Amino acid sequence: MKRFVALLAMTTALSASAQDKPFAIAIHGGSGTITRATLTPEREAAYRAVLTEALEAGRKVLAANGTSLDAVVAAVKIMEDSPLFNAGKGAVFTHEGTNEMDASIMDGIGRRAGAVAGVTVIRNPIEAARAVMDKSRHVMMAGKGAELFAKDQGLAIVDPKYFWTQERWDQLQKAKERDRIQLDHDAPRKTAALEEDEKFGTVGAVALDRAGNLAAATSTGGLTNKRFGRVGDSPIVGAGTWAENESVAVSATGTGEMFIRGVAAYDIAARVKYKGATPQQAADDALATVKSLGGRGGVIVLDRSGNAVFSFTTEGMYRGVAKGETKPEVLIYR
Amino acid sequence: MKRFVALLAMTTALSASAQDKPFAIAIHGGSGTITRATLTPEREAAYRAVLTEALEAGRKVLAANGTSLDAVVAAVKIMEDSPLFNAGKGAVFTHEGTNEMDASIMDGIGRRAGAVAGVTVIRNPIEAARAVMDKSRHVMMAGKGAELFAKDQGLAIVDPKYFWTQERWDQLQKAKERDRIQLDHDAPRKTAALEEDEKFGTVGAVALDRAGNLAAATSTGGLTNKRFGRVGDSPIVGAGTWAENESVAVSATGTGEMFIRGVAAYDIAARVKYKGATPQQAADDALATVKSLGGRGGVIVLDRSGNAVFSFTTEGMYRGVAKGETKPEVLIYR
Repeated sequence: MKRFVALLAMTTALSASAQDKPFAIAIHGGSGTITRATLTPEREAAYRAVLTEALEAGRKVLAANGTSLDAVVAAVKIMEDSPLFNAGKGAVFTHEGTNEMDASIMDGIGRRAGAVAGVTVIRNPIEAARAVMDKSRHVMMAGKGAELFAKDQGLAIVDPKYFWTQERWDQLQKAKERDRIQLDHDAPRKTAALEEDEKFGTVGAVALDRAGNLAAATSTGGLTNKRFGRVGDSPIVGAGTWAENESVAVSATGTGEMFIRGVAAYDIAARVKYKGATPQQAADDALATVKSLGGRGGVIVLDRSGNAVFSFTTEGMYRGVAKGETKPEVLIYR
Repeated sequence: MKRFVALLAMTTALSASAQDKPFAIAIHGGSGTITRATLTPEREAAYRAVLTEALEAGRKVLAANGTSLDAVVAAVKIMEDSPLFNAGKGAVFTHEGTNEMDASIMDGIGRRAGAVAGVTVIRNPIEAARAVMDKSRHVMMAGKGAELFAKDQGLAIVDPKYFWTQERWDQLQKAKERDRIQLDHDAPRKTAALEEDEKFGTVGAVALDRAGNLAAATSTGGLTNKRFGRVGDSPIVGAGTWAENESVAVSATGTGEMFIRGVAAYDIAARVKYKGATPQQAADDALATVKSLGGRGGVIVLDRSGNAVFSFTTEGMYRGVAKGETKPEVLIYR
C-alpha cells in the first residue's frame, strides 16, 4: 500500500510538473496612429475578434503540448488570412499596384531561422519562411526564387488577385496623390513618405511552449506605395524577429528602415544577455534607439518564464497575450 | 611679436592636431581553405597585388581628409573590379548560371545604412548600396527594383556577360557534379553544400577617417550553385556589416546563413558596448557563436582609435590593413 501511494504520488508529481510548466503567446497586429477617435466601435470589435481568434489558435497548440513554432505560425496565419491586417490577404499595395510580402520565423532552439522577401503569390508567407527554415540549407530567399521554392514545397499558391482589397487599393491611390502633392511643392519626402498612412500593419507572434522553448514570427505587406523592391525589417533576422532560449523572443512592427539600423529585435536580446537588463527595460531602450534614428513602432517580447512585455512609441498597437489557461487579453490603445 | 608667436604656435597646434588624428583602413577578400599548399606563388602574388591596391585606394582617400565612407567604397570597388574575388566582376554563378550579387554599406555617423540584394546588372553593387543609403528613404532594395533604382541614379549598368569568367563557370560545373553525386547517394546535403568550394569570397572594408568617423562595406556574389533567390549575410545590416561611432565597424565573410543567425557583425558591437569587451575578444566570441551554429568564416573590426582586429575560424583569410602613413600590411595565411 505504501508503495502504491508512493507510485501514485510520483505519477501525480510528474504529470503535474508537465502540466505546471508555463506556456504563453503574445501577438501584435501592427502599431501606429490608432486612437479611439480614429477607430469606430464596429471596426474595433472586428480587430478584437481576429486578435482573440489568433491568440486562441496559438494557445490551443500550446495547451495540447505543441511547439512554440507551431503556435506562432497558427496565430500569424489567422492574421494573414484576415483583410484587417497588413500581411497576407490584407497586404498593402506597392507603387506598381502589386503586393510584395515579407516574413520571417525563428526557433529559440539553436537559433534556427527562415525568411522570405518580396513574394507575391504565396498565400501564407509565414509558412514559406517556416519551410525555408525547416526544408532548406538557407535562411533567406527572395522574389521569384522564394516562390519557386514554396511551390516545390507544396505550399498554397494563389493568384495575385487574392491579395486585392478595396481598402488597400484606396490607400494606395491616396498615398500616390500625397506623393504628387509633395513633389509639386518639392517638399522633403524623406520622413513623411515612410509613414504614408501612419500605420505599420505588420503582424507577429512570440510564444513559449511547455518544453520551455521560445519562438517568434513576423509577417508583413510592407509600406503602401513602396518601390524598387524595398525590403523592411520584417524578414530580417535580428531586426524584425528574434528568438533564442538563452534570452527572449521578439517580434517588431514600425518604420522598418530604422528597426534595421537599430537591429531592434536582437538589440533587445543583447541588452538582456550582456547587460542584464529586464525585458521591459531592454525593449524600451531599443525603441528609444529606433526613435533617435527617426523611427517609431512597437515590439512584443516574451521571456522563458512566460512573461510578456509590450513597448511602443506610437499612439496605439494592436496586441494581445494569452498565458496558460487564463482568459486572453486584447489591447489596442495606450 | 609675442602675439605673433602665440598665433603661430596656435596655428601649428591646430594643423598638427588635424594631421595627428589617426586614420586607418582594413580590408578582407574572403576566408576559407586558403593554405600555402593550395595557392601557387603566382596566384598569391596576384592576390597580394590587388589587396595592396585596394588598401592604397582607401588610404589615399583618408590621407586627403576624405571620409571613411568614400574610403571603404574605393577599396571595395578595386576588389569588385578584379576577377580574383567573389564580388562584382569575379562573382560566382548561381545554379541557373547567372550572377546574383549582394552588398551593403554603413555610416558610423547616425547608423545610416544601404543595401542591395540579388542584383545582376550593376557593375559595382557597393555603389548601389551607397546610393540606397544616400539617395533613398530605404535601407534595402532587392532584385529588379534595386536595378531600376541604380539605373535611375546613373550608376554603371553592364550586360550580365560582364560577370562571366571561365574560373567561376568551371566552379559551377564542379559544384553541380558534386550535388548530383550526393543526390545519387542520397547523402545529407545540408552542411556540405553550403561550402561548395570551401571559400567564402566576400570582400569588405572598414575605415576610420581623420574626423573620427567609422564606416563599413561588404560585397559578394554569394554561394556557387545557390538557388531560390538565396540571400546571405552580406546585404544584411547587423549580420555582414556594421558601423557606429559609439562602438566599432565590422565586415564579415563566411557561411552567411550562420552569420545571419548569429547577427555576427552587430553581436561584436553589442559585446563592446554592453559588456565592455575588447574588439578582439568580441570578434573571437561572436565567431565562436557562429561556429556553435555550424558556420565558419572571418571578420575585420576597426575601433575609433584606428586599431584593426582580424578574427577567423578558417585556414586563411585574404586581409590587410593600412594605418596612417605606415606601409600597408597584407596577410593571407593564419
